[in-house]
Amino acid sequence: MKEQTISKATIDRLPLYYRTLRLAQDDGMDIISSDELGRRLELTPEQIRKDLALFGQFGKKGVGYYVNELKFNVGKILGLDNHWNIAIVGIGHLGVALANYQNFIALGFNLVALFDNDPNIIGKTVNHVKVKSIDELQSCAKNLKIDIGVIAVPAQFAQQVADKLVKANIKGIWNFAPVKMRVPEDVKIVNEDLSVGLSRLSYYITGK
Amino acid sequence: MKEQTISKATIDRLPLYYRTLRLAQDDGMDIISSDELGRRLELTPEQIRKDLALFGQFGKKGVGYYVNELKFNVGKILGLDNHWNIAIVGIGHLGVALANYQNFIALGFNLVALFDNDPNIIGKTVNHVKVKSIDELQSCAKNLKIDIGVIAVPAQFAQQVADKLVKANIKGIWNFAPVKMRVPEDVKIVNEDLSVGLSRLSYYITGK
Repeated sequence: MKEQTISKATIDRLPLYYRTLRLAQDDGMDIISSDELGRRLELTPEQIRKDLALFGQFGKKGVGYYVNELKFNVGKILGLDNHWNIAIVGIGHLGVALANYQNFIALGFNLVALFDNDPNIIGKTVNHVKVKSIDELQSCAKNLKIDIGVIAVPAQFAQQVADKLVKANIKGIWNFAPVKMRVPEDVKIVNEDLSVGLSRLSYYITGK
Repeated sequence: MKEQTISKATIDRLPLYYRTLRLAQDDGMDIISSDELGRRLELTPEQIRKDLALFGQFGKKGVGYYVNELKFNVGKILGLDNHWNIAIVGIGHLGVALANYQNFIALGFNLVALFDNDPNIIGKTVNHVKVKSIDELQSCAKNLKIDIGVIAVPAQFAQQVADKLVKANIKGIWNFAPVKMRVPEDVKIVNEDLSVGLSRLSYYITGK
Protein backbone atom coordinates (compact mmCIF):
# COMPACT_ATOMS: atom_id res chain seq x y z
CA MET A 1 0.00 0.00 0.00
CA LYS A 2 2.71 2.45 0.99
CA GLU A 3 4.20 2.30 -2.50
CA GLN A 4 1.03 3.74 -3.93
CA THR A 5 0.87 6.71 -1.60
CA ILE A 6 4.50 7.76 -1.24
CA SER A 7 6.28 9.15 -4.27
CA LYS A 8 9.63 7.77 -5.37
CA ALA A 9 11.16 11.22 -4.86
CA THR A 10 10.07 11.23 -1.20
CA ILE A 11 11.41 7.73 -0.66
CA ASP A 12 14.70 8.83 -2.19
CA ARG A 13 14.87 11.69 0.31
CA LEU A 14 14.31 9.51 3.39
CA PRO A 15 17.90 8.20 3.61
CA LEU A 16 19.04 11.83 3.50
CA TYR A 17 16.70 12.65 6.38
CA TYR A 18 18.09 9.71 8.29
CA ARG A 19 21.70 10.75 7.69
CA THR A 20 21.00 14.37 8.63
CA LEU A 21 19.24 13.31 11.84
CA ARG A 22 22.13 11.02 12.71
CA LEU A 23 24.55 13.95 12.32
CA ALA A 24 22.23 16.17 14.41
CA GLN A 25 22.25 13.44 17.07
CA ASP A 26 26.07 13.38 16.92
CA ASP A 27 25.99 17.17 17.41
CA GLY A 28 24.05 16.59 20.65
CA MET A 29 20.79 18.13 19.40
CA ASP A 30 17.56 17.04 21.13
CA ILE A 31 15.13 19.03 19.01
CA ILE A 32 15.44 20.25 15.43
CA SER A 33 13.13 22.75 13.70
CA SER A 34 11.89 22.18 10.16
CA ASP A 35 13.81 25.37 9.24
CA GLU A 36 17.09 23.91 10.48
CA LEU A 37 16.34 20.51 8.96
CA GLY A 38 15.55 22.31 5.70
CA ARG A 39 18.80 24.28 5.82
CA ARG A 40 20.80 21.10 6.31
CA LEU A 41 18.92 19.17 3.62
CA GLU A 42 18.60 22.09 1.18
CA LEU A 43 14.85 21.69 1.11
CA THR A 44 12.10 24.14 2.02
CA PRO A 45 10.55 23.75 5.51
CA GLU A 46 7.21 23.20 3.74
CA GLN A 47 8.65 20.29 1.78
CA ILE A 48 9.96 18.75 5.00
CA ARG A 49 6.68 19.09 6.83
CA LYS A 50 4.89 17.60 3.82
CA ASP A 51 7.33 14.67 3.53
CA LEU A 52 7.22 13.78 7.21
CA ALA A 53 3.48 14.24 7.57
CA LEU A 54 3.07 11.24 5.25
CA PHE A 55 4.38 8.95 7.96
CA GLY A 56 2.56 10.29 11.00
CA GLN A 57 2.93 12.99 13.59
CA PHE A 58 6.58 13.38 14.53
CA GLY A 59 6.78 17.07 15.42
CA LYS A 60 5.46 19.48 18.00
CA LYS A 61 4.12 22.74 16.63
CA GLY A 62 6.33 25.71 17.46
CA VAL A 63 8.98 23.44 18.98
CA GLY A 64 10.32 21.19 16.24
CA TYR A 65 11.04 17.53 15.80
CA TYR A 66 12.51 15.34 18.54
CA VAL A 67 15.74 14.18 16.88
CA ASN A 68 15.97 10.71 18.46
CA GLU A 69 12.30 9.90 17.93
CA LEU A 70 12.25 11.14 14.34
CA LYS A 71 15.47 9.29 13.48
CA PHE A 72 14.08 6.11 15.03
CA ASN A 73 10.88 6.44 13.04
CA VAL A 74 12.55 7.27 9.73
CA GLY A 75 14.88 4.31 10.31
CA LYS A 76 11.85 2.11 10.93
CA ILE A 77 10.14 3.33 7.74
CA LEU A 78 13.34 2.63 5.81
CA GLY A 79 13.39 -0.83 7.35
CA LEU A 80 16.84 -0.30 8.89
CA ASP A 81 15.59 -1.99 12.07
CA ASN A 82 15.57 -5.25 10.08
CA HIS A 83 19.40 -5.28 10.24
CA TRP A 84 19.64 -6.84 6.78
CA ASN A 85 22.35 -9.35 6.03
CA ILE A 86 24.49 -8.32 3.09
CA ALA A 87 26.75 -10.26 0.73
CA ILE A 88 29.10 -8.67 -1.78
CA VAL A 89 29.88 -10.47 -5.05
CA GLY A 90 33.09 -9.39 -6.76
CA ILE A 91 35.96 -8.64 -4.38
CA GLY A 92 38.03 -6.41 -6.64
CA HIS A 93 38.90 -2.89 -5.54
CA LEU A 94 35.27 -1.76 -5.47
CA GLY A 95 34.18 -4.84 -3.53
CA VAL A 96 36.92 -4.34 -0.94
CA ALA A 97 36.09 -0.63 -0.65
CA LEU A 98 32.42 -1.49 -0.06
CA ALA A 99 33.30 -4.24 2.44
CA ASN A 100 35.23 -1.66 4.45
CA TYR A 101 32.67 1.13 4.16
CA GLN A 102 31.90 2.15 7.74
CA ASN A 103 28.60 3.87 6.98
CA PHE A 104 26.79 0.58 6.34
CA ILE A 105 27.57 -0.72 9.77
CA ALA A 106 26.47 2.59 11.30
CA LEU A 107 23.09 2.04 9.62
CA GLY A 108 22.74 -1.45 11.08
CA PHE A 109 23.52 -3.55 8.01
CA ASN A 110 25.50 -6.74 8.62
CA LEU A 111 28.18 -7.85 6.20
CA VAL A 112 27.89 -11.65 6.32
CA ALA A 113 29.56 -12.95 3.15
CA LEU A 114 31.94 -12.12 0.30
CA PHE A 115 32.13 -14.03 -2.98
CA ASP A 116 34.49 -14.11 -5.95
CA ASN A 117 35.42 -16.55 -8.71
CA ASP A 118 39.15 -15.83 -8.69
CA PRO A 119 41.19 -18.55 -6.85
CA ASN A 120 43.71 -15.83 -5.91
CA ILE A 121 41.03 -13.89 -4.07
CA ILE A 122 39.00 -16.78 -2.59
CA GLY A 123 40.19 -17.46 0.96
CA LYS A 124 41.38 -13.91 1.64
CA THR A 125 39.87 -12.03 4.57
CA VAL A 126 38.39 -8.55 4.18
CA ASN A 127 36.94 -6.74 7.18
CA HIS A 128 36.89 -10.01 9.19
CA VAL A 129 34.94 -11.86 6.47
CA LYS A 130 36.53 -14.64 4.43
CA VAL A 131 36.00 -14.56 0.66
CA LYS A 132 34.16 -17.67 -0.57
CA SER A 133 33.80 -19.17 -4.02
CA ILE A 134 30.78 -17.96 -5.98
CA ASP A 135 29.81 -21.65 -6.24
CA GLU A 136 28.92 -21.51 -2.55
CA LEU A 137 26.46 -18.65 -3.01
CA GLN A 138 23.34 -20.78 -3.11
CA SER A 139 24.06 -22.76 0.07
CA CYS A 140 25.43 -19.72 1.95
CA ALA A 141 22.41 -17.59 1.06
CA LYS A 142 20.25 -20.03 2.96
CA ASN A 143 22.57 -20.78 5.88
CA LEU A 144 23.62 -17.17 6.46
CA LYS A 145 20.17 -15.73 5.67
CA ILE A 146 21.46 -13.29 3.07
CA ASP A 147 18.88 -10.58 2.33
CA ILE A 148 20.79 -8.29 -0.01
CA GLY A 149 23.33 -9.08 -2.72
CA VAL A 150 25.74 -6.38 -3.88
CA ILE A 151 27.01 -6.72 -7.45
CA ALA A 152 30.55 -5.36 -7.75
CA VAL A 153 31.74 -7.45 -10.71
CA PRO A 154 32.70 -6.16 -14.19
CA ALA A 155 29.75 -5.33 -16.46
CA GLN A 156 30.02 -8.44 -18.62
CA PHE A 157 29.50 -10.76 -15.61
CA ALA A 158 26.79 -8.73 -13.88
CA GLN A 159 23.72 -10.45 -15.35
CA GLN A 160 24.94 -13.95 -14.51
CA VAL A 161 25.64 -12.86 -10.94
CA ALA A 162 22.15 -11.32 -10.77
CA ASP A 163 20.70 -14.65 -12.00
CA LYS A 164 22.58 -16.51 -9.26
CA LEU A 165 21.35 -14.09 -6.60
CA VAL A 166 17.76 -14.47 -7.81
CA LYS A 167 18.11 -18.26 -7.76
CA ALA A 168 19.42 -18.01 -4.20
CA ASN A 169 16.20 -16.23 -3.17
CA ILE A 170 17.72 -12.98 -1.98
CA LYS A 171 15.27 -10.09 -1.53
CA GLY A 172 17.17 -7.21 -3.10
CA ILE A 173 20.12 -6.38 -5.33
CA TRP A 174 22.35 -3.35 -5.09
CA ASN A 175 24.03 -3.11 -8.47
CA PHE A 176 27.21 -1.16 -9.23
CA ALA A 177 27.73 -2.57 -12.74
CA PRO A 178 26.79 -0.02 -15.42
CA VAL A 179 24.30 -2.30 -17.17
CA LYS A 180 20.56 -2.71 -17.07
CA MET A 181 19.73 -5.95 -15.26
CA ARG A 182 16.83 -8.31 -15.91
CA VAL A 183 15.36 -9.66 -12.65
CA PRO A 184 11.89 -10.93 -11.69
CA GLU A 185 9.52 -8.26 -10.42
CA ASP A 186 9.55 -9.51 -6.83
CA VAL A 187 13.32 -8.97 -6.54
CA LYS A 188 14.01 -5.31 -5.88
CA ILE A 189 17.00 -3.70 -7.52
CA VAL A 190 18.74 -0.38 -6.92
CA ASN A 191 21.28 0.64 -9.56
CA GLU A 192 24.13 2.78 -8.32
CA ASP A 193 25.65 5.03 -10.95
CA LEU A 194 28.62 6.91 -9.56
CA SER A 195 28.75 9.18 -12.58
CA VAL A 196 25.53 10.89 -11.47
CA GLY A 197 27.27 12.69 -8.59
CA LEU A 198 30.15 13.72 -10.80
CA SER A 199 27.79 15.04 -13.51
CA ARG A 200 25.97 17.06 -10.85
CA LEU A 201 29.27 18.60 -9.77
CA SER A 202 30.01 19.38 -13.42
CA TYR A 203 26.76 21.35 -13.57
CA TYR A 204 27.63 23.34 -10.46
CA ILE A 205 31.07 24.38 -11.67
CA THR A 206 29.99 25.15 -15.25
CA GLY A 207 30.02 28.85 -16.02
CA LYS A 208 31.96 29.67 -12.85
CA MET B 1 20.87 32.98 -12.88
CA LYS B 2 20.11 29.36 -13.71
CA GLU B 3 20.50 28.36 -10.08
CA GLN B 4 17.58 30.59 -9.14
CA THR B 5 15.21 29.18 -11.72
CA ILE B 6 16.05 25.47 -11.78
CA SER B 7 15.31 23.46 -8.67
CA LYS B 8 17.94 21.23 -7.12
CA ALA B 9 15.68 18.23 -7.69
CA THR B 10 15.58 18.94 -11.43
CA ILE B 11 19.35 19.38 -11.57
CA ASP B 12 19.71 16.06 -9.77
CA ARG B 13 17.58 14.40 -12.43
CA LEU B 14 19.60 15.74 -15.39
CA PRO B 15 22.43 13.17 -15.10
CA LEU B 16 19.75 10.46 -15.12
CA TYR B 17 18.27 11.96 -18.30
CA TYR B 18 21.73 12.01 -19.82
CA ARG B 19 22.40 8.37 -18.91
CA THR B 20 19.01 7.23 -20.19
CA LEU B 21 19.50 9.07 -23.49
CA ARG B 22 22.95 7.54 -23.85
CA LEU B 23 21.44 4.06 -23.42
CA ALA B 24 18.68 4.92 -25.93
CA GLN B 25 21.40 6.02 -28.36
CA ASP B 26 23.19 2.69 -27.78
CA ASP B 27 19.88 0.96 -28.56
CA GLY B 28 19.87 2.73 -31.92
CA MET B 29 16.87 4.97 -31.16
CA ASP B 30 16.56 8.20 -33.15
CA ILE B 31 13.44 9.53 -31.48
CA ILE B 32 12.07 8.93 -27.98
CA SER B 33 8.63 9.88 -26.70
CA SER B 34 8.11 11.47 -23.29
CA ASP B 35 6.09 8.33 -22.41
CA GLU B 36 9.05 6.06 -23.15
CA LEU B 37 11.51 8.41 -21.47
CA GLY B 38 9.17 8.45 -18.48
CA ARG B 39 8.98 4.68 -18.39
CA ARG B 40 12.75 4.37 -18.41
CA LEU B 41 13.25 7.11 -15.81
CA GLU B 42 10.26 6.17 -13.64
CA LEU B 43 8.86 9.68 -13.96
CA THR B 44 5.54 10.86 -15.35
CA PRO B 45 5.58 12.18 -18.94
CA GLU B 46 4.30 15.49 -17.52
CA GLN B 47 7.32 15.73 -15.20
CA ILE B 48 9.64 15.09 -18.12
CA ARG B 49 8.03 17.71 -20.32
CA LYS B 50 8.18 20.18 -17.43
CA ASP B 51 11.84 19.43 -16.66
CA LEU B 52 13.02 19.69 -20.24
CA ALA B 53 10.92 22.76 -21.06
CA LEU B 54 13.10 24.68 -18.58
CA PHE B 55 16.03 24.43 -20.96
CA GLY B 56 14.36 25.20 -24.28
CA GLN B 57 12.46 23.47 -27.03
CA PHE B 58 13.91 19.99 -27.55
CA GLY B 59 10.86 18.02 -28.69
CA LYS B 60 8.44 17.92 -31.57
CA LYS B 61 4.79 17.64 -30.63
CA GLY B 62 3.32 14.24 -31.45
CA VAL B 63 6.73 12.88 -32.46
CA GLY B 64 8.98 12.92 -29.43
CA TYR B 65 12.49 14.03 -28.65
CA TYR B 66 15.41 13.62 -31.02
CA VAL B 67 17.73 11.43 -28.92
CA ASN B 68 21.07 12.76 -30.20
CA GLU B 69 20.03 16.39 -30.04
CA LEU B 70 18.49 16.09 -26.58
CA LYS B 71 21.50 14.18 -25.24
CA PHE B 72 23.84 16.79 -26.69
CA ASN B 73 21.84 19.59 -25.09
CA VAL B 74 21.48 17.94 -21.68
CA GLY B 75 25.24 17.26 -21.78
CA LYS B 76 25.84 20.92 -22.57
CA ILE B 77 23.61 22.03 -19.68
CA LEU B 78 25.49 19.68 -17.37
CA GLY B 79 28.75 21.14 -18.65
CA LEU B 80 30.02 17.75 -19.80
CA ASP B 81 31.32 19.43 -22.99
CA ASN B 82 33.95 21.08 -20.79
CA HIS B 83 35.73 17.72 -20.53
CA TRP B 84 36.82 18.47 -16.98
CA ASN B 85 40.22 17.30 -15.74
CA ILE B 86 39.95 15.13 -12.66
CA ALA B 87 42.42 14.20 -9.94
CA ILE B 88 41.81 11.55 -7.29
CA VAL B 89 43.38 11.92 -3.84
CA GLY B 90 43.70 8.69 -1.88
CA ILE B 91 44.62 5.65 -3.96
CA GLY B 92 43.35 2.94 -1.64
CA HIS B 93 40.74 0.47 -2.87
CA LEU B 94 38.09 3.14 -3.41
CA GLY B 95 40.54 5.40 -5.26
CA VAL B 96 41.64 2.57 -7.54
CA ALA B 97 38.02 1.56 -8.18
CA LEU B 98 37.18 5.15 -9.12
CA ALA B 99 40.28 5.50 -11.31
CA ASN B 100 39.12 2.44 -13.27
CA TYR B 101 35.45 3.44 -13.47
CA GLN B 102 34.62 3.40 -17.19
CA ASN B 103 31.50 5.57 -16.92
CA PHE B 104 33.51 8.74 -16.22
CA ILE B 105 35.40 8.42 -19.46
CA ALA B 106 32.15 7.75 -21.34
CA LEU B 107 30.90 11.09 -20.01
CA GLY B 108 33.97 12.93 -21.26
CA PHE B 109 35.83 13.43 -17.98
CA ASN B 110 39.65 13.14 -18.14
CA LEU B 111 41.56 11.44 -15.36
CA VAL B 112 44.79 13.45 -15.25
CA ALA B 113 46.34 12.80 -11.84
CA LEU B 114 46.37 10.50 -8.80
CA PHE B 115 47.78 11.44 -5.40
CA ASP B 116 48.61 9.60 -2.20
CA ASN B 117 50.88 10.11 0.80
CA ASP B 118 51.97 6.47 1.16
CA PRO B 119 55.48 5.81 -0.24
CA ASN B 120 54.35 2.25 -1.07
CA ILE B 121 51.62 3.60 -3.34
CA ILE B 122 53.40 6.63 -4.85
CA GLY B 123 54.95 5.65 -8.18
CA LYS B 124 52.44 2.91 -8.96
CA THR B 125 50.40 3.17 -12.16
CA VAL B 126 46.62 2.89 -12.17
CA ASN B 127 44.68 3.11 -15.44
CA HIS B 128 47.77 4.54 -17.20
CA VAL B 129 48.21 7.32 -14.61
CA LYS B 130 51.17 7.34 -12.22
CA VAL B 131 50.43 8.03 -8.54
CA LYS B 132 52.19 11.18 -7.33
CA SER B 133 52.97 12.43 -3.84
CA ILE B 134 50.30 14.66 -2.31
CA ASP B 135 53.09 17.26 -1.93
CA GLU B 136 52.99 17.74 -5.69
CA LEU B 137 49.27 18.59 -5.71
CA GLN B 138 49.72 22.36 -5.81
CA SER B 139 52.16 22.41 -8.74
CA CYS B 140 50.30 19.67 -10.66
CA ALA B 141 46.95 21.39 -10.26
CA LYS B 142 48.34 24.33 -12.21
CA ASN B 143 50.36 22.41 -14.80
CA LEU B 144 47.71 19.78 -15.50
CA LYS B 145 44.80 22.23 -15.19
CA ILE B 146 42.95 20.11 -12.63
CA ASP B 147 39.28 21.17 -12.39
CA ILE B 148 37.87 18.58 -9.99
CA GLY B 149 39.43 16.89 -6.97
CA VAL B 150 38.01 13.59 -5.74
CA ILE B 151 38.50 12.87 -2.03
CA ALA B 152 38.86 9.12 -1.43
CA VAL B 153 40.93 9.24 1.78
CA PRO B 154 39.82 8.04 5.25
CA ALA B 155 37.51 10.43 7.10
CA GLN B 156 40.16 11.76 9.48
CA PHE B 157 42.29 13.10 6.61
CA ALA B 158 39.47 14.43 4.44
CA GLN B 159 39.44 18.04 5.69
CA GLN B 160 43.16 18.54 5.22
CA VAL B 161 42.92 17.17 1.67
CA ALA B 162 39.99 19.53 1.01
CA ASP B 163 42.13 22.43 2.30
CA LYS B 164 44.95 21.46 -0.08
CA LEU B 165 42.52 21.23 -3.02
CA VAL B 166 41.09 24.66 -2.20
CA LYS B 167 44.59 26.13 -1.94
CA ALA B 168 45.37 24.60 -5.34
CA ASN B 169 42.43 26.56 -6.84
CA ILE B 170 40.40 23.61 -8.07
CA LYS B 171 36.77 24.40 -8.98
CA GLY B 172 34.94 21.49 -7.43
CA ILE B 173 35.28 18.67 -4.92
CA TRP B 174 33.64 15.26 -5.11
CA ASN B 175 33.83 13.89 -1.59
CA PHE B 176 33.48 10.23 -0.60
CA ALA B 177 34.56 10.68 3.02
CA PRO B 178 31.59 10.50 5.40
CA VAL B 179 32.29 13.89 7.01
CA LYS B 180 30.95 17.38 6.52
CA MET B 181 33.65 19.48 4.85
CA ARG B 182 34.34 23.17 5.32
CA VAL B 183 35.21 24.87 2.02
CA PRO B 184 34.85 28.47 0.78
CA GLU B 185 31.56 29.24 -0.96
CA ASP B 186 33.07 29.54 -4.42
CA VAL B 187 34.34 25.96 -4.31
CA LYS B 188 31.48 23.59 -5.15
CA ILE B 189 31.25 20.30 -3.28
CA VAL B 190 29.17 17.19 -3.91
CA ASN B 191 29.13 14.66 -1.08
CA GLU B 192 28.69 11.06 -2.14
CA ASP B 193 27.09 8.85 0.49
CA LEU B 194 26.93 5.27 -0.69
CA SER B 195 24.65 4.30 2.16
CA VAL B 196 21.80 6.28 0.58
CA GLY B 197 21.32 3.71 -2.20
CA LEU B 198 21.46 0.85 0.25
CA SER B 199 18.92 2.50 2.55
CA ARG B 200 16.61 2.97 -0.42
CA LEU B 201 16.88 -0.72 -1.21
CA SER B 202 16.11 -1.49 2.44
CA TYR B 203 12.87 0.46 2.08
CA TYR B 204 11.85 -1.44 -1.04
CA ILE B 205 12.38 -4.88 0.50
CA THR B 206 10.80 -4.03 3.86
CA GLY B 207 7.49 -5.74 4.38
CA LYS B 208 8.02 -8.05 1.41
